[in-house]
Amino acid sequence: MSEVNVAIDPFWDVNIDIPGVNVVRWDLEGEAPGPLDIVVTGHWVPGDGAERAAKAGAKLLQIGSIGFDAVNPDLPEGLQVANAATVHETATAEMVLAMLLAGLRNIPQMVADNKEHKWNTFYYEGLADKKVMLIGVGGVGREIMKRLEPFAVDLTLVASRERDEDFGHVYSLDQIDDLLPEQDVVIIVIPATDATKGLVNKDFLAAMKDGATFLNAGRGTLAVTEDLAAEGDRLHLLIDVVDPEPLPADSPLWEAAQLITSHNGGNTKAMHPRMQALIERQAKHALAGEPFENVVLGK
Amino acid sequence: MSEVNVAIDPFWDVNIDIPGVNVVRWDLEGEAPGPLDIVVTGHWVPGDGAERAAKAGAKLLQIGSIGFDAVNPDLPEGLQVANAATVHETATAEMVLAMLLAGLRNIPQMVADNKEHKWNTFYYEGLADKKVMLIGVGGVGREIMKRLEPFAVDLTLVASRERDEDFGHVYSLDQIDDLLPEQDVVIIVIPATDATKGLVNKDFLAAMKDGATFLNAGRGTLAVTEDLAAEGDRLHLLIDVVDPEPLPADSPLWEAAQLITSHNGGNTKAMHPRMQALIERQAKHALAGEPFENVVLGK
Repeated sequence: MSEVNVAIDPFWDVNIDIPGVNVVRWDLEGEAPGPLDIVVTGHWVPGDGAERAAKAGAKLLQIGSIGFDAVNPDLPEGLQVANAATVHETATAEMVLAMLLAGLRNIPQMVADNKEHKWNTFYYEGLADKKVMLIGVGGVGREIMKRLEPFAVDLTLVASRERDEDFGHVYSLDQIDDLLPEQDVVIIVIPATDATKGLVNKDFLAAMKDGATFLNAGRGTLAVTEDLAAEGDRLHLLIDVVDPEPLPADSPLWEAAQLITSHNGGNTKAMHPRMQALIERQAKHALAGEPFENVVLGK
Repeated sequence: MSEVNVAIDPFWDVNIDIPGVNVVRWDLEGEAPGPLDIVVTGHWVPGDGAERAAKAGAKLLQIGSIGFDAVNPDLPEGLQVANAATVHETATAEMVLAMLLAGLRNIPQMVADNKEHKWNTFYYEGLADKKVMLIGVGGVGREIMKRLEPFAVDLTLVASRERDEDFGHVYSLDQIDDLLPEQDVVIIVIPATDATKGLVNKDFLAAMKDGATFLNAGRGTLAVTEDLAAEGDRLHLLIDVVDPEPLPADSPLWEAAQLITSHNGGNTKAMHPRMQALIERQAKHALAGEPFENVVLGK
């Protein structure tokens, strides 16, 4: 292609300046602004986004999130869908460390003390020397690993199947029964599938030792909310995602958790320059007649 | 020496098991428990610790803190004082990252929302891509550097004199006027000396841009408390140490700061295994007739 027409949702704070790439802003509402090659949604994907993009002639629907469960997989002919891998991992991994350090230094207690103007010196757990299990070693998991590395923790990796990776040995979910009781911290960021939904239930939590920390930054449905709430006195619960969202005001989890971060994992400015870089790469792929990257549907 | 007698303050959760090293517990109160070679204080140093250690025949007073301003530098003949470098850097650097991430993801807001059972989704600054100035590149500073490294920040290092180190270029304090206005975050962990006390005053803070973050984890006297309080509406203040400590309940800084962590920087379990390792090394130095390490007084 000598020219590529890209429509970008106004949500994105990006400025694409590549010869041959024409950019218009479009939120996928109303008429398409002329014929398009690539349509970029906002952070979330409209239910009929694929149909609207295809109608405007687009070959690629670039969505703004990593999860693509909102897109109807029964795609119009000739359209591919790419997810936003590389865009959100930075902010989400950062939030996991923020939650972990806040929990293990008890920053919620400090915030409460601050409100009362109370200088409160106390010793607390800390993250150093802790045994940490990370369930999920995809893009977000690997960014968490990088950030944990200088904190002197003893890390155990878990994913759906056992394997050796360049970043270490990965145990399978089938093997965690023996590993869970020795962990000080369990972090879950694995995708929610039929195999993983409800994984963190009564039995899983009961296997964790007294005072251990559980952190969910994957999907709310990975854990059974009422089972979490029932363990709040025994475990430290750090919750970014929960089932359902928003968490109802009368949920006992509000009092049971040490910290709830209201699914703000990916919500920083870091996503914009990374989305800009992804859109630039996709536009150059189109100009060069190369395959798109991050294609998750319509392969 | 074929035998070394070590007295250790009961504060320390350590278990020294080295042939030829005899360990007793002593809090430096009352009679010394027989002749001693090494005396290890608790986390804080008694004012007359040096005299008491010398009286028991000790060659080394191993104090429990990095700062040694509590020890009278007019030492008894034959006594050396070692500080606890290598013991506290881990927990303090960890706290700096905890404060920084809590501030830049606004965890204090989340804690307040949690209290009201309010699911509150919002976009916030984040740490990634930020320009960060670190003032102080000693033991704690270097541990902070290591932990910042995977967070995709643009780091500027500052210390008392300009130089090149293996970890990068270090600017001098005289050069910061041009550098301060571009920083998103300024972290100070430099020792408090005549040259650095009151460094963070009205002019320093005025040079920082709107919405920037200032973090003090060095000593309270590095910053002028009333000047900090006056900038609370314009800057984000993350305060571990303050002048005076404890911060009085009526100080305006309580409301002006985003987070005050009450000098809990070093207060985790991480100090104990690291103190054990330091005591073991000092005892082995004595057995081998080698010089002690970390000697700060009586060199």
